[in-house]
Amino acid sequence: MRIEDKQYKTIWNDNNSIKIIDQTKLPHQLVIKELKTVQDAIKAIKNMEVRGAPLIGATAAYGLVLAIKESSDHEFLKKKSNELILSRPTAINLKWAVERMMKKISKIDKTNILDHAIKEAENICNEDVSFCKKIGVNGMEIINDIYKKTKKTINILTHCNAGWLATVDWGTATSPIYMAFKKGIPIHIWVDETRPRNQGANLTSFELNEEKIPNTIISDNTGGLLMQRGKVDMCIVGSDRTLSNGDVCNKVGTYLKALAAYDNQIPFYVALPSSTIDWSLKNSKDIPIEERSPKELSHIRGIDKDRNLSELQIYPKKSKALNLAFDITPAKYVTALITEKGTCKPSEEGIINLFND
Amino acid sequence: MRIEDKQYKTIWNDNNSIKIIDQTKLPHQLVIKELKTVQDAIKAIKNMEVRGAPLIGATAAYGLVLAIKESSDHEFLKKKSNELILSRPTAINLKWAVERMMKKISKIDKTNILDHAIKEAENICNEDVSFCKKIGVNGMEIINDIYKKTKKTINILTHCNAGWLATVDWGTATSPIYMAFKKGIPIHIWVDETRPRNQGANLTSFELNEEKIPNTIISDNTGGLLMQRGKVDMCIVGSDRTLSNGDVCNKVGTYLKALAAYDNQIPFYVALPSSTIDWSLKNSKDIPIEERSPKELSHIRGIDKDRNLSELQIYPKKSKALNLAFDITPAKYVTALITEKGTCKPSEEGIINLFND
Repeated sequence: MRIEDKQYKTIWNDNNSIKIIDQTKLPHQLVIKELKTVQDAIKAIKNMEVRGAPLIGATAAYGLVLAIKESSDHEFLKKKSNELILSRPTAINLKWAVERMMKKISKIDKTNILDHAIKEAENICNEDVSFCKKIGVNGMEIINDIYKKTKKTINILTHCNAGWLATVDWGTATSPIYMAFKKGIPIHIWVDETRPRNQGANLTSFELNEEKIPNTIISDNTGGLLMQRGKVDMCIVGSDRTLSNGDVCNKVGTYLKALAAYDNQIPFYVALPSSTIDWSLKNSKDIPIEERSPKELSHIRGIDKDRNLSELQIYPKKSKALNLAFDITPAKYVTALITEKGTCKPSEEGIINLFND
Repeated sequence: MRIEDKQYKTIWNDNNSIKIIDQTKLPHQLVIKELKTVQDAIKAIKNMEVRGAPLIGATAAYGLVLAIKESSDHEFLKKKSNELILSRPTAINLKWAVERMMKKISKIDKTNILDHAIKEAENICNEDVSFCKKIGVNGMEIINDIYKKTKKTINILTHCNAGWLATVDWGTATSPIYMAFKKGIPIHIWVDETRPRNQGANLTSFELNEEKIPNTIISDNTGGLLMQRGKVDMCIVGSDRTLSNGDVCNKVGTYLKALAAYDNQIPFYVALPSSTIDWSLKNSKDIPIEERSPKELSHIRGIDKDRNLSELQIYPKKSKALNLAFDITPAKYVTALITEKGTCKPSEEGIINLFND
């Protein structure tokens, strides 16, 4: 999608140099960074220079490519695979992408391994783009159906950033939004700020602005009131891990919006590529919830009066803080899952039927 | 309560000079400010140097005292009363306190009016302290009942600041907490950050720290997850306006926590003095919801690297933001109201029975 009217992807292979957009600098600065080693890739994932379940999967795939450049020794690659998988604990795509890469290269002769790894990482990226586009087409139908009934601007609430910046391109939750906008359906997006890292305000609002889509940032506390007062027609969020029973693990706070949507009879959709489905775990209580540094709460970045990017400590040191990154939205609060294969009920039956077709 | 081990109230009459703590500077600086004119009082309420339903009532009462010092002309006082009432639209105590003051002085001979006004403002403040203490005693019983069953540290979640800084002393939601702590019941408080003004992080955590009560700041998104994972035993919040049917209008985001508490079978209490009950409005949809400046979302204050109090703009100017300050928690999600008269069911019947006794 566009930044300053130029087309970008979030990660790309530029003559065997892997480039990313450093998302910790957005929306204030556009910084393109080169990942030179697998360690760079791990750091980029850990520090959230890249984030979003699909994009960290793609970055991990290229991370393995960079590892192979250092050594094609199997033990070394196994070790780096594990480090990549452990760089963030909650999103399932990370594991999925690394295992797919390792499976691919395990069958390949050592002399060709780099070329094959590059090809497979490219496949993962291209598939992600194609899946996101399909999610967009499938989700756009839902927006269009509401529009055909109301003939008014459709107000869509989204949480965090499940935008193109969270994937390779198009996004998951935003893809139906981009498709609807391109089709000419009048839409307006309520963007949850998404504390503590403000990915809604910093990334979602930014990418919607760059695509000229009307949007308004609200505090994470506000969505419930807007729903109570009839200002929200539907919600669409992404997913970091979706269980086969339809429970959705996504950015912390998603659950609260799903409860409010349910209480106000507003449809609540989750958009996801099949790579975020965890077919093994059966109980969402067993999903590890990442605990990140309390500094993400107590410190904040922005532009100071001299227009420099600067950081403030917003709470005193003696104030303790806890920073848990995800929560669980039980399937019963989800209207439907929007995937690359189509939409389905958030249930074992719905998901299996869709993916067995 | 204490700041740096010294006892304070939030507003006091210091030899006919009205003093407040400028709460916009907390927790970084303790600034005592004098209100010299009714205009100072209006500005202090508008700019949230004082905030919290009971405290803005008390400040408005002293505001009228300051108005009388300027002129005891009835038309002038009527005009200033209206300006005081309009300085914040949602909290009902403001109107209640101003009307109580006007009723009192309307019966008084002009020569004695100032003395009587001072006395009535003092009465309002003293009553507030006494009511808050009673709320504390009544609410502490509830905490103690849970403790007697579990014999474990009681984890209490609160939203925004319904602490002593929101009242004259003791607070509403925090008063049971202070009483329980003084009684030796082991407690730990989850403090919602409360965007956009961060009154939870800036004020509630600050006042709990000053009273040495264990507490942890969480983002407003986190409470649902903590409830899902069994880390919350009860919620207590305040109220800016309580309808006689039990619907509660409080800081935006309260509703979302009430939904999560309900979904996880966690008791959700609202602590309030009777002055926040609106006996006239029957439908919570008719409560005016204050819209404040989007700058409260897009700009934030904190300590810079040179330890100076400084401000950052955290979103670009072209990002639109909407800042609504309150939401409605329907009575069905409230376990009970804790008032100075005792606790009651959040219903017409419960409230009338309690206050008719």
